[in-house]
Amino acid sequence: MNIAVLGTGSVGHTLGSKLVERGHTVMMGARSESNERAAAWALGAGPLASHGSFARAAAFGSVIINCTSGTASLAALEMAGADNLAGKILMDVANPLDYSSGRLRLTVVNTDSLGEQIQRAFPRTRVVKTLNTMNCQVMVNPGLLPGQHAVFVSGNDAQARAEVAGYLKDWFGWPAVIDLGDITTARGPEMLLPLWVSLMDVMDTTIFNVTIVR
Amino acid sequence: MNIAVLGTGSVGHTLGSKLVERGHTVMMGARSESNERAAAWALGAGPLASHGSFARAAAFGSVIINCTSGTASLAALEMAGADNLAGKILMDVANPLDYSSGRLRLTVVNTDSLGEQIQRAFPRTRVVKTLNTMNCQVMVNPGLLPGQHAVFVSGNDAQARAEVAGYLKDWFGWPAVIDLGDITTARGPEMLLPLWVSLMDVMDTTIFNVTIVR
Repeated sequence: MNIAVLGTGSVGHTLGSKLVERGHTVMMGARSESNERAAAWALGAGPLASHGSFARAAAFGSVIINCTSGTASLAALEMAGADNLAGKILMDVANPLDYSSGRLRLTVVNTDSLGEQIQRAFPRTRVVKTLNTMNCQVMVNPGLLPGQHAVFVSGNDAQARAEVAGYLKDWFGWPAVIDLGDITTARGPEMLLPLWVSLMDVMDTTIFNVTIVR
Repeated sequence: MNIAVLGTGSVGHTLGSKLVERGHTVMMGARSESNERAAAWALGAGPLASHGSFARAAAFGSVIINCTSGTASLAALEMAGADNLAGKILMDVANPLDYSSGRLRLTVVNTDSLGEQIQRAFPRTRVVKTLNTMNCQVMVNPGLLPGQHAVFVSGNDAQARAEVAGYLKDWFGWPAVIDLGDITTARGPEMLLPLWVSLMDVMDTTIFNVTIVR
C-alpha cells in the first residue's frame, strides 16, 4: 500500500520505517521537497521509502498518517491540500502539546480536540484519531509491553475506524482496538496526555502504556 | 479514626459505609444538619455512623474526604470552614463535571484543576487528590477487578501523600499507589474523565479501571 507519513520527527521516522519493513511504499512528507531529515530517512530506509512535500506525499498516499506536531498540524495539512486528502483515511496521531509556558498544556481541549479541528477543516477526509496515547516505539511494537493493552480509535466514519483497526493489527500487531465512537471522543485520548507526561516523569521511562482492566 | 465524609451522593454513601465496616467512626457532612439522605445513611450504617453539617463533620474528622460534586466542592468546603480543615488531610475525590451543555465538559481543566483550586482556597489544609478516576464500587473494593490496577495521589505534601497511600491500602485494599507528585499533577487524573466516560459508554459498565502497563 502507498502510505504518506506527514512529519519528520521521531514519530514519523519510527512509523515510516516500520511500514517499509512491512513491505509498504512510504513517502515522508515535509514542509519542503528538500527537507534534510526526510531525505536522510528515505536514504536510510531503502527502495520502498521516498520523501517529498506535504502535498506530493498526500497525493501519493492511499492512507495518510499525520505525525506532525499538533500545534502545526492544521497548517501542514493545508499545505498537503484538501484535494489530495479527499476521500482518504487520515490517521491523526498528533497531540496539541504546548510547553511554551514551561509546563504542558493542550492548545485545544475539553470542548474540542485536534481530531475534531482536522475533521472540520477537511470534511471530505475520513479522520481517525489513534495511537496518540503512547510513545512511538510502543505504537509500532505493542509486544514491548506484556499482555494486551489499549489503543483507541475515534472517527465519524465507522467503516474507517474498522479499517484503521485492521491496519493497526496488520502493520504493528495490535490484537484489539477500542472503538470509542465519533471524532468528538478524541477529546478523551488527547486529554490523557497530562497524565501520560506525569507518569513518564515518575516512572522515568517512555515505554509504558495506559490500559483498561475490567 | 474519626473520618468526615462530605457529600451525600453515592460516593459519600459507599465510602462512608466501607469505613464504618472497617471500624472507623464516620460523620457524613451535608449542607444542612437535617439532610435526609445523610440521616438515612447514618441510621442504616449503625452506631459508628453519624451525620451533621459540613462544618460539624469537618470539625469531627481527623481526615476529611471531599465527596461533593466537583462544581459544588468549593462552596461546600467554605461551609465546612477553613479552621475546621486546617492542618488536616483532605482527600479530594471529586471531579469538576458539567453536563449542562448536553455532553461532558470539565469546569476547570488544562492550566488548573479542582485539586489546585481547593489547595489554593485552603492553604492550611493538606489536599491530596485521589480515587477520582474510578467508580465508587471500585474505590472501596479494588478486588472487583483482576490484578493490580492504578490509583493515583497528587498533593504538595509528600508526607500527606504517603499517609493517604497508607489509608488506601488499610481501608480499601489498594496494594500499590502511584505517587504523581505535587497538586498540579491532579490535572492528569481529572482530565482522564472524558476518556473514562467514553469507555463507560462503549463497555456499558462502570466496573472497570484505567491502569498502567510497563
